[in-house]
Amino acid sequence: MHVLIIGAAGMVGRKFVGAISRCGMLGTQSVEKLTLVDAVEPQVPAGFEGAVTRLALDISEPSTAPQLLADRPDVIVHLAAIVSGEAEQDFDKGYSINLDGTRYLFDAVRQISLQHGYCPRLVFASSIAVFGSPMPDEIDDIFVRAPMTSYGTQKAICELLLQDYTRRGFFDGMAIRLPTICIRPGLPNKAASGFFSGILREPLAGKEAILPVPDTVSHWHASPRAAVGFLTHAATMDTGPVGHRRALTMPGILATVAEQIEALRQIAGDKAVALIRQEPDPDIIRIVSNWPRGFATERALALGFRAESSFDEIIRIHIDDEMGGKL
Amino acid sequence: MHVLIIGAAGMVGRKFVGAISRCGMLGTQSVEKLTLVDAVEPQVPAGFEGAVTRLALDISEPSTAPQLLADRPDVIVHLAAIVSGEAEQDFDKGYSINLDGTRYLFDAVRQISLQHGYCPRLVFASSIAVFGSPMPDEIDDIFVRAPMTSYGTQKAICELLLQDYTRRGFFDGMAIRLPTICIRPGLPNKAASGFFSGILREPLAGKEAILPVPDTVSHWHASPRAAVGFLTHAATMDTGPVGHRRALTMPGILATVAEQIEALRQIAGDKAVALIRQEPDPDIIRIVSNWPRGFATERALALGFRAESSFDEIIRIHIDDEMGGKL
Repeated sequence: MHVLIIGAAGMVGRKFVGAISRCGMLGTQSVEKLTLVDAVEPQVPAGFEGAVTRLALDISEPSTAPQLLADRPDVIVHLAAIVSGEAEQDFDKGYSINLDGTRYLFDAVRQISLQHGYCPRLVFASSIAVFGSPMPDEIDDIFVRAPMTSYGTQKAICELLLQDYTRRGFFDGMAIRLPTICIRPGLPNKAASGFFSGILREPLAGKEAILPVPDTVSHWHASPRAAVGFLTHAATMDTGPVGHRRALTMPGILATVAEQIEALRQIAGDKAVALIRQEPDPDIIRIVSNWPRGFATERALALGFRAESSFDEIIRIHIDDEMGGKL
Repeated sequence: MHVLIIGAAGMVGRKFVGAISRCGMLGTQSVEKLTLVDAVEPQVPAGFEGAVTRLALDISEPSTAPQLLADRPDVIVHLAAIVSGEAEQDFDKGYSINLDGTRYLFDAVRQISLQHGYCPRLVFASSIAVFGSPMPDEIDDIFVRAPMTSYGTQKAICELLLQDYTRRGFFDGMAIRLPTICIRPGLPNKAASGFFSGILREPLAGKEAILPVPDTVSHWHASPRAAVGFLTHAATMDTGPVGHRRALTMPGILATVAEQIEALRQIAGDKAVALIRQEPDPDIIRIVSNWPRGFATERALALGFRAESSFDEIIRIHIDDEMGGKL
C-alpha cells in the first residue's frame, strides 16, 4: 500500500513514519511506498525498504494537494498544522494553512473520487482544542464543539468537513483528537503546555525544570507511542461501526501535576523531583484554566483505540524510546 | 441607523423588511437607510421613508461583500442561503454560497474592522439542521453539532466562524437557529417540511392538503412574525450577557401533527380538517425521522427571545397577517 503523510517532519509525524519504516507495515498491511510531505523536507525514513518520496510543500497553495494525489495513495494521514499560539497570533496564516489547506486536500480527493471512484482512508489529526469552557469534568462525544481559539475553530471546522465528505462517499475519514503528548521528546519549548512534558523529561535527564502552575492542575495525556497507535488504528480499522460521527477524542490518562510528579518520584527518586522548581506564571495559569481536563472516551475504547493505563507507563515509554532504556 | 439585509427577497427577509418599513424602526432605533440584497432584486419596501438601495448580487463572488460594506452598515442581517435540498443536490453550489459567501462577508467586515475599528452587529440565520441523529428528545445548547446534510454542515461551520470572528472583535455576531416557520405563506412547495404549513394553510383557504407522515410526528415551530421578532432582538439586544457561545436555538412550539390538526379544528372546524388527505410518503417519513424534534431553549428565553405559546396563536397570526383577519 501507498501511504501519504502530510506533516511528516513534526514530532508525531516522525514517530509515525519511524514505526512504519521499522517493520514496513501499517498495522497488518505491508507498505510499499511512502510519500512524506511537510513545510520542510522530511528526513529519510531509516530502515524503510520501499519507495520514498520526500517533499517540501506549502499545503495552503491550491496546487499542492492535486500534486500529492497524482498516484492516488491508499491512505492519507494529515497531521500538518500551524500550532495554537501561532494561529492565534497570525489569523490569516492559521486559516490559510489549518482550514484552507485541509479543504484543498479534501476537495482534491473529491475531484478524483468523482472521476474515478477513488475512496482512500483519510486520517485527520484534530485536537481537544475544539472544546471550550464552560466544560464538564468529563467531556463526552456529544458535547458541543465550542472552541475558544482560532486553532480550535479551524480543527472543529475540518472535523465537520471530514464528516460531510465521508457521508458523501468522497473518502473514508477519521478525525482523531489527540491528548497532550507526554513525554514530548526534544528541547523545552515555549508552548503553554510544554511544562507537562518538561517537568518529567528534564529531571529524567538530570536537568532543572520549571513548573508554572499549581500541582492540582489536571490534564489529559498520552505517550508519543500511543499517538502512533491511534494513527495506525484510525488508518486501518473497520470504519463500519463508527457511523457518521467520525470525530473521536482519543483515550488518555487523566492526571494532576502532583500525580505526574509522584510517578516521577517512583521511577527516578527524590533527586529527580528536587529538580522541579515552582515558579507560578499567571499567563500560563490562565491559559490552562480554559483547557479541557477529562474526557469520557468509551466510544473510542469500544472502537479499539488504546492508550496507557498509568503515568508510570508513560514515563517508562520515554525511558525506553528516548533514553535507550536507562536513566 | 443603516441596516444591510442579505437575502432580503426570501420569505423571512421580506417579512423582516416589511416590519422595519412599516414603523421606520428596528426595535427601538430609527432606521434611516436600508440596503436590500438578494440573488434577485428585492421589492421596494412599502411605506419606508428612508433611503433604500436594492441590489441583485451573487454573494459567492468575492467582490460582492466589500461592495456591500462600502458605507459601513450598522447592522448586517445575513439570511441568504441555498436551501437544504439544493445544497444536497449541488455540492459545489451549496459550499460556494452557504460557506464561501458567508466567509467573504465575515472577512470583508474584518478588513474594515482592522483598518478602521468598525464593529457592526452581525446576525446570521442558522438552522436546526446543524443537529443530526441520534438526538435526545430535547436538544440543549451544549449538544454536539453533528449535521447529516451538507446544508447543516455549512451552517454549523458558519456558526463556528461567527464565534471566532466575534471573539476576535471583528464584529458583534449572533447566530440564531430558526425553528420551522409555520404557517409559511404562499403556494405549496416541494420542501420535505412543506406539509407542516400546507396542512393548515390550504384548509384555511378551503383547499385540499396532503399529509405524508403519521400524525404522531412532532416538530418545532414558530410563526413568521416570531422569526421577525428573533431577528429584531438579535440585531438590537445587549450581547454582553451572551458570552462567547453566540449560536442559539430559538424558542418555538413543540407540536405533533395531531396537535396541529386539533388547533385547526378549534379555529376552522371539522370542514377544514376534512380537507386534509392522508397519503403516506416513505421518502418524507424517512427524511423527517432524522430531524430534531424538541429543544431546551432556556438560554434563548433568558436572553429575551420570544415565540408563540400555543399552536392556536400560530394559526391566528396567519389569519391576521395573511388573510386580512378573517376566514
